[in-house]
Amino acid sequence: MNKIRCAILGCGNVGSALVSQLIVGHDDIVKRTGVDIEIAGIAVRDVAKHRDAKHGYIDGSLFTDDPFALVNDSSVDIVVELIGGTDPASQLIDRAIETGKSVVSANKELLARRGSDLVSAAASAGVELLYEAAVAGAIPVVRLLAESLAAEQLYRVSGIVNGTTNFVLSAMSEEGVDYHEALEEAQRLGLAESNPSADVDGYDAAAKAAILAGIAYRCDVRLDDVAREGITRVRAEDVQYARQLGYIIKLLVVTELNQKSRPNVSENQASQAPTAPQVSQAPTVPQAPAASTVPQVSVRVYPAMVPVSHPLASVRGAHNAVFIEGERCGEIMLYGQGAGGVPTASAVMGDLVDAAAKRLAGHQPYASMVPAREPVPRAYVIPPSELRCAWYINMDVRDQPGVLAAVAHVFGDNGVSIRSMEQVGMGSEARLIFVTHEAREGDIDKTLEELHGLGAVENIGGILRVFGESKTR
Amino acid sequence: MNKIRCAILGCGNVGSALVSQLIVGHDDIVKRTGVDIEIAGIAVRDVAKHRDAKHGYIDGSLFTDDPFALVNDSSVDIVVELIGGTDPASQLIDRAIETGKSVVSANKELLARRGSDLVSAAASAGVELLYEAAVAGAIPVVRLLAESLAAEQLYRVSGIVNGTTNFVLSAMSEEGVDYHEALEEAQRLGLAESNPSADVDGYDAAAKAAILAGIAYRCDVRLDDVAREGITRVRAEDVQYARQLGYIIKLLVVTELNQKSRPNVSENQASQAPTAPQVSQAPTVPQAPAASTVPQVSVRVYPAMVPVSHPLASVRGAHNAVFIEGERCGEIMLYGQGAGGVPTASAVMGDLVDAAAKRLAGHQPYASMVPAREPVPRAYVIPPSELRCAWYINMDVRDQPGVLAAVAHVFGDNGVSIRSMEQVGMGSEARLIFVTHEAREGDIDKTLEELHGLGAVENIGGILRVFGESKTR
Repeated sequence: MNKIRCAILGCGNVGSALVSQLIVGHDDIVKRTGVDIEIAGIAVRDVAKHRDAKHGYIDGSLFTDDPFALVNDSSVDIVVELIGGTDPASQLIDRAIETGKSVVSANKELLARRGSDLVSAAASAGVELLYEAAVAGAIPVVRLLAESLAAEQLYRVSGIVNGTTNFVLSAMSEEGVDYHEALEEAQRLGLAESNPSADVDGYDAAAKAAILAGIAYRCDVRLDDVAREGITRVRAEDVQYARQLGYIIKLLVVTELNQKSRPNVSENQASQAPTAPQVSQAPTVPQAPAASTVPQVSVRVYPAMVPVSHPLASVRGAHNAVFIEGERCGEIMLYGQGAGGVPTASAVMGDLVDAAAKRLAGHQPYASMVPAREPVPRAYVIPPSELRCAWYINMDVRDQPGVLAAVAHVFGDNGVSIRSMEQVGMGSEARLIFVTHEAREGDIDKTLEELHGLGAVENIGGILRVFGESKTR
Repeated sequence: MNKIRCAILGCGNVGSALVSQLIVGHDDIVKRTGVDIEIAGIAVRDVAKHRDAKHGYIDGSLFTDDPFALVNDSSVDIVVELIGGTDPASQLIDRAIETGKSVVSANKELLARRGSDLVSAAASAGVELLYEAAVAGAIPVVRLLAESLAAEQLYRVSGIVNGTTNFVLSAMSEEGVDYHEALEEAQRLGLAESNPSADVDGYDAAAKAAILAGIAYRCDVRLDDVAREGITRVRAEDVQYARQLGYIIKLLVVTELNQKSRPNVSENQASQAPTAPQVSQAPTVPQAPAASTVPQVSVRVYPAMVPVSHPLASVRGAHNAVFIEGERCGEIMLYGQGAGGVPTASAVMGDLVDAAAKRLAGHQPYASMVPAREPVPRAYVIPPSELRCAWYINMDVRDQPGVLAAVAHVFGDNGVSIRSMEQVGMGSEARLIFVTHEAREGDIDKTLEELHGLGAVENIGGILRVFGESKTR
């Protein structure tokens, strides 16, 4: 019979939803997919706790508090790692691969830190390593990028991959509440932790950004490569000004592949012979390698102004979406539930059935989620100061003659050109809302620094990037 | 070396985009995917025409007008069928499978007519049959349904899969033009054929609906099973009334799996012992088989009122989207370019690389696009008269006392309850706009028939279904 034995490590929200489906839905899965998956054991921290009535349909003897023993069990075919974090998940996955087991993991943090190593190890051992559930919950974006779009030259993969922050920003936009009220509502609804930092400071999104960029551009991108900015500084008034200007503020992950089109980085390189002495034109810019040998990428998380007409703008509440732009496929968006035990378990189940079917067919993995035919090149991550986009800048100034001229001068001196300016409020203070044309981030930083030094500028309150066209086309 | 030889049948928009990518992008594809795909030949109707300058990068000797010779060539590994239609595409694919070649096809019509046969034949022969490009162009919905969601119990798969009609309806909604003006604009832009019937009468969408339903519910659904209604009767005024009521009119494919939750069809069955004498309660209703043995599905194409808050409502212009609802994955939407040579070729390329990689790895197909471990059951297609949804009905009546009561009486007598009614226009004629609660389609038909018989009803102009919650949850 087509029986596959799987070890499940971790039995929290996702794990218990998976176990429930494997047991209660067992016959359905056999009927639909032709594979018969049997649970070899479930590793938990506290066996006694899990043997209570809550999991009445589970044979209590399946629980163990020794995950290593389970991983070492030679009758196990597939290890499903749902513990999260790096230790002991990292050692457990290493051990599973060493002992020839296929691995399914939902561990975004570990994959963002060690994904490339793990993929190489799995490829060498001839086992599958699948991790659909590590990014965007139930949305099958990993398989889409790795398989359907394997031959596609992708330019930019961006998206909303953290449901908590999208809920908070949606509430601020739709109900006019401020950040703290919206966060409290999310906490009441169980959408945000009592310590919300992983979500609101962008750590969760950053891990997913690293994974997405690695798959999209076939390179090694790590959590530490991700430039990260959270939503704690987004003010209710910026949300309202954004709406008036035709934008919605979203916490985005934005990963982009640099081709030859970004003059500050790669064209200078391309025009120099590789062996010529390298004279860096701006001393602060690290020398980028030639784009043809090492993928040059930018990988960032930041709150951005998204035009209301863009498909990402309509992603509301706790939903997630990933927006893919490629040379031939054009624009593709995937939308769905990004979190929750049951939807995330659905993604784990898809991987588990795939790994099981391949194991039954005796397949060597031919295309793991990142192709591992040769060592995946370490990405060159472009410094944020070199990247270009349009900016929203909102400042309070003294309402006196000559202020606008002085402010405009600072923009112009730093090579930043202004697309629109609007003054709101009157009296001794006025608020100026600027949207710039695309500008180098380093130039924006200098502009802001000089503006802070102008006596007439009281306060620079809102500074947000505008999500625009992909720069690489 | 990892060389795979492919025969390309057809060199129109999609074929020439594919050939161009295979030749011009050859080294890129090798680098990205590790497979080296070589063109064994390109079958076209008129060899001379294709040898002109337009395809200057193609070795002219690759063209042939004998597709069967190409398919019979024993050096060919994969046949890519881009001819369309049933003859000779059908015979060519049969022959390719018989001679052990993997097949990639974008032929929606053939797959909607013979998909289940072809899948069985390919499974028996141990070759791949992949057809991502047959549904929704560049959007990888086929692989998502077949692989990522293999273990998922899906309830409903619906969507906008015809870009021409979506462009026409978007123009009617956004620019206020009527159907004929919008169609002419689409024709001017090359988005509609001079004979637009395949698009506007819903034939194209119907083929895609049959394919989607077959994959989603793992059963044999054929083009003839699809209840089809086009957009030619959608009037500018209905588009405007829809907007006022909070809806956008879209041509939808709606495929649904019936569980035990539809009283008119399956619960009656479930409550009867299988061997009991079957007394059909309504003589016009064919006896449905038990849902547990044969999948009971509905598969339809119709213009529908979609609530503006629904993700499908925001799909504008020639874009496509597929909206998937499942037990555990929740709601997933895929959005992208549904047509065009280059995006469609991108989907073909994804399949071609996949088939090539599997062939190089010596894999027997373990999960073709429809699992073929056992014969796929023929679906029982629920008669439309048995299906339930809410309706929009717009009628002109004589503005005289008692008319509304008479009309309301007809609704009530037929078991149709009214959710909202609005009167527009005054004077000797008035227009009544009804939205009903969910009602059996057979009851709506009877209601309309009786309303036509009422002297006070001058004309029933707009009749549209309202896209609602999935009925199977």
